[in-house]
Amino acid sequence: MKTKILGGEIIAFDGKKHVLIDKGEIVYEEDRIIFAGESYPGDVEKTIDVRPNLIIPGLINVHTHSLTAPLLYRGISEDEGWVLYKYLLPIRYGTPTTPPYAQGEDAYFLSRLTILDILRSGVTTVFEQTDNLEDPIKAARELGIRFYGCHAYFNSMPFEKSGEVIYPPAKDICPGFDENLRLIREYQNAANGRIKVWLGPHAPDTCSQDLLRETRKKADELKVGIGTHISQSLTEVNEIKKRFNKTPVAYLGDLNFWGKDVIAAHAIHTTSSDVGIMARDGMNVAHCASSYVKSGIHAPLARYRRAGINVVLGTDQNPMDFLDEMRLALFSSKLNEDDPKALTVLDVFNMVTLKAAQALGREDIGRIAPGAKADLVVVNTRQTHLCPHRDPLKTLVYHANRNDVEMVIVDGKTVMEGRRVLTMDEEETMARAEEAARRLWKKAEAEFGLPKILLERTSKV
Amino acid sequence: MKTKILGGEIIAFDGKKHVLIDKGEIVYEEDRIIFAGESYPGDVEKTIDVRPNLIIPGLINVHTHSLTAPLLYRGISEDEGWVLYKYLLPIRYGTPTTPPYAQGEDAYFLSRLTILDILRSGVTTVFEQTDNLEDPIKAARELGIRFYGCHAYFNSMPFEKSGEVIYPPAKDICPGFDENLRLIREYQNAANGRIKVWLGPHAPDTCSQDLLRETRKKADELKVGIGTHISQSLTEVNEIKKRFNKTPVAYLGDLNFWGKDVIAAHAIHTTSSDVGIMARDGMNVAHCASSYVKSGIHAPLARYRRAGINVVLGTDQNPMDFLDEMRLALFSSKLNEDDPKALTVLDVFNMVTLKAAQALGREDIGRIAPGAKADLVVVNTRQTHLCPHRDPLKTLVYHANRNDVEMVIVDGKTVMEGRRVLTMDEEETMARAEEAARRLWKKAEAEFGLPKILLERTSKV
Repeated sequence: MKTKILGGEIIAFDGKKHVLIDKGEIVYEEDRIIFAGESYPGDVEKTIDVRPNLIIPGLINVHTHSLTAPLLYRGISEDEGWVLYKYLLPIRYGTPTTPPYAQGEDAYFLSRLTILDILRSGVTTVFEQTDNLEDPIKAARELGIRFYGCHAYFNSMPFEKSGEVIYPPAKDICPGFDENLRLIREYQNAANGRIKVWLGPHAPDTCSQDLLRETRKKADELKVGIGTHISQSLTEVNEIKKRFNKTPVAYLGDLNFWGKDVIAAHAIHTTSSDVGIMARDGMNVAHCASSYVKSGIHAPLARYRRAGINVVLGTDQNPMDFLDEMRLALFSSKLNEDDPKALTVLDVFNMVTLKAAQALGREDIGRIAPGAKADLVVVNTRQTHLCPHRDPLKTLVYHANRNDVEMVIVDGKTVMEGRRVLTMDEEETMARAEEAARRLWKKAEAEFGLPKILLERTSKV
Repeated sequence: MKTKILGGEIIAFDGKKHVLIDKGEIVYEEDRIIFAGESYPGDVEKTIDVRPNLIIPGLINVHTHSLTAPLLYRGISEDEGWVLYKYLLPIRYGTPTTPPYAQGEDAYFLSRLTILDILRSGVTTVFEQTDNLEDPIKAARELGIRFYGCHAYFNSMPFEKSGEVIYPPAKDICPGFDENLRLIREYQNAANGRIKVWLGPHAPDTCSQDLLRETRKKADELKVGIGTHISQSLTEVNEIKKRFNKTPVAYLGDLNFWGKDVIAAHAIHTTSSDVGIMARDGMNVAHCASSYVKSGIHAPLARYRRAGINVVLGTDQNPMDFLDEMRLALFSSKLNEDDPKALTVLDVFNMVTLKAAQALGREDIGRIAPGAKADLVVVNTRQTHLCPHRDPLKTLVYHANRNDVEMVIVDGKTVMEGRRVLTMDEEETMARAEEAARRLWKKAEAEFGLPKILLERTSKV
């Protein structure tokens, strides 16, 4: 079935770059775009009129953790810096004597809420790293979002004891790695190819050298990408230096681990020679501005871009507001570099569309062009904060927010219309996730303590 | 008439600090709150049920320029740094040979759009500095927002000639000062006291010493406050040093200009001894984060707070999204100080409520308590990005956006309900402002050039 969508403005792709079509139309058939321009010459079966609104390509969020976001990173961890790790890690992963807090339906509904929330801010492709991967896969299939995931595996997760970080000896076996391989077998290209599974070694300090080598071997063999974390904390950097007398980036470089098929999150603490290795080996960096800024941390986004490294954006565990995240990447880069042009509107828009597609090895998403997947987002521009607008892209990136996303189409299917999601029960999702979170917070407050609620409660003033 | 509003949660004020009432109710009679607590014992004439949503005090935005915001600072000036001054100032103020671009109905509708837009992000009190003050006053009366304004007057506005900044000799007369005095006579306490007019000397370098002395004298005599700019640019700082061998802050200190009745915007370039003078004389600083961050500029918010100076927030000419502005003040302070606790959620919330009320010399706004004005904002918390929430204030400040503002009550009157403004034609406002902006941009493009629109236009890809 051919569907035509009429827009006030369309940000399309001319084969090299994003361009602007005024009062244009897009025609798609099943999951593919077949036309974008002022006027389609043929007949269509269905017409959707979203004028005078703006149509943009679906955005791509390359690094998220859906389970922990609503449980621990919303209205809890703000202003706390990194100290939260001491009680948040045990809540997430359990301790030697207790299992992880969120399991079963709790874990599923918390992940499902995040996947839903991600779509609502205009994201049509999300990359998730977690060890409850079947939960977000299930939610993504139901919702209809395009989904990449990897099972975050490790064989030596450190723990804190009397303020000291202790790494247990690496286990020979890694059930998580096997589980990741099973998930690849089971889900690769499910749901019309919307579901993809990559390999997910957690980080250089939590995986043994053998496990990292085996990961690279399997990635080449299975032709799947790798999602991981690199140089995220000084604990990690110091541990790798202690073990191998190298930085984490150099250590993985010497293992021939890096490649265009790797998306490594964070890369906060790196040296100049690390930057050289990263550029040489062609890996992709997932920059997660709100994670860093919240903790007063300056991450070297502009430096990586100058070196030719493909930097892309993710929301990490934080608010899943991708438009806010784009702005924060812009603002923090300008402040970090004392330079209003350190990162620009067009840079950041390319990072969440074309550059992100490149990181995923795709040429059919992150753009509106014949042959590309019909992943489309409609932004309601007829609002006091977006009107008048002279430059649609500057107005979008600097002034729009998640609630301005009016309609989302993924793989040619309308998933959200008039801000209402059509494929998933939103009320149930919120209610079940809320219930789970309240129960788990209560347990955590009793066992570890959580940050104090800012305002005292009273019955009358 | 007594009206009761039922909320899921209420951020109320116990006489010293903000506190939280769960499942509470607020009762107001005419323009004043008479009760806030779990259950009002008396009868009321009308009940509004906004459960399970959150009710917060109306926010206070202490520094704006409503005319230029939609004309020049939205989708135009982003990423450009300060260079825009060279073509934006003439558009706003005219040149020796041409009048200001926006006049008459154009100026009115551009200002009106901004005043409307400001309310929509949860602001119930706004402070405007402009020389078309009757326009925003008219818009504020019609809309029903609480409004402070001053007429921005000067008697030596510099201009750029061949890249050099030239200050014309200060004129003996200042028609703008007289106009400001007329506006005070005409509008003070209009609209049930919602409209207030202060004095508005533009800046130390654009006003003569006599004019500044006269301003202080009149402010004392008329018992009105003063809104001004201080240490905003190095041009200003260098000019005052050249003339008086003092910093701008010290120069005004020696004129006995400062006081608790002054709100000075920006104060970006100050010395340690300036900070001492500012703290000693008890003035208020209006910090406008997005203005600075957009240009890669670090402004010393945390430093002023440590010195005991009352820092409050304004949106300046930038996006009038006050929730975004609050977050940006938080994020930029953390980055500027490399410290996650440099500014916290509670700090920033107090800055836009209690501290801002203090800057305006009021104890009856910025709080929900018996005796205070009924300025109330309802935030829709039943959305995927605000749910579940454990700490309402952290969730509000870090995660809510302007479109989550569901209802606004000012002076006991419902101005917005279900996100629809009841007192002003929004479509007309947008259409007329859009029309004016398009016409003025066209003229500006021909005369000065404006920044290139980021994307090339095409008719087909």
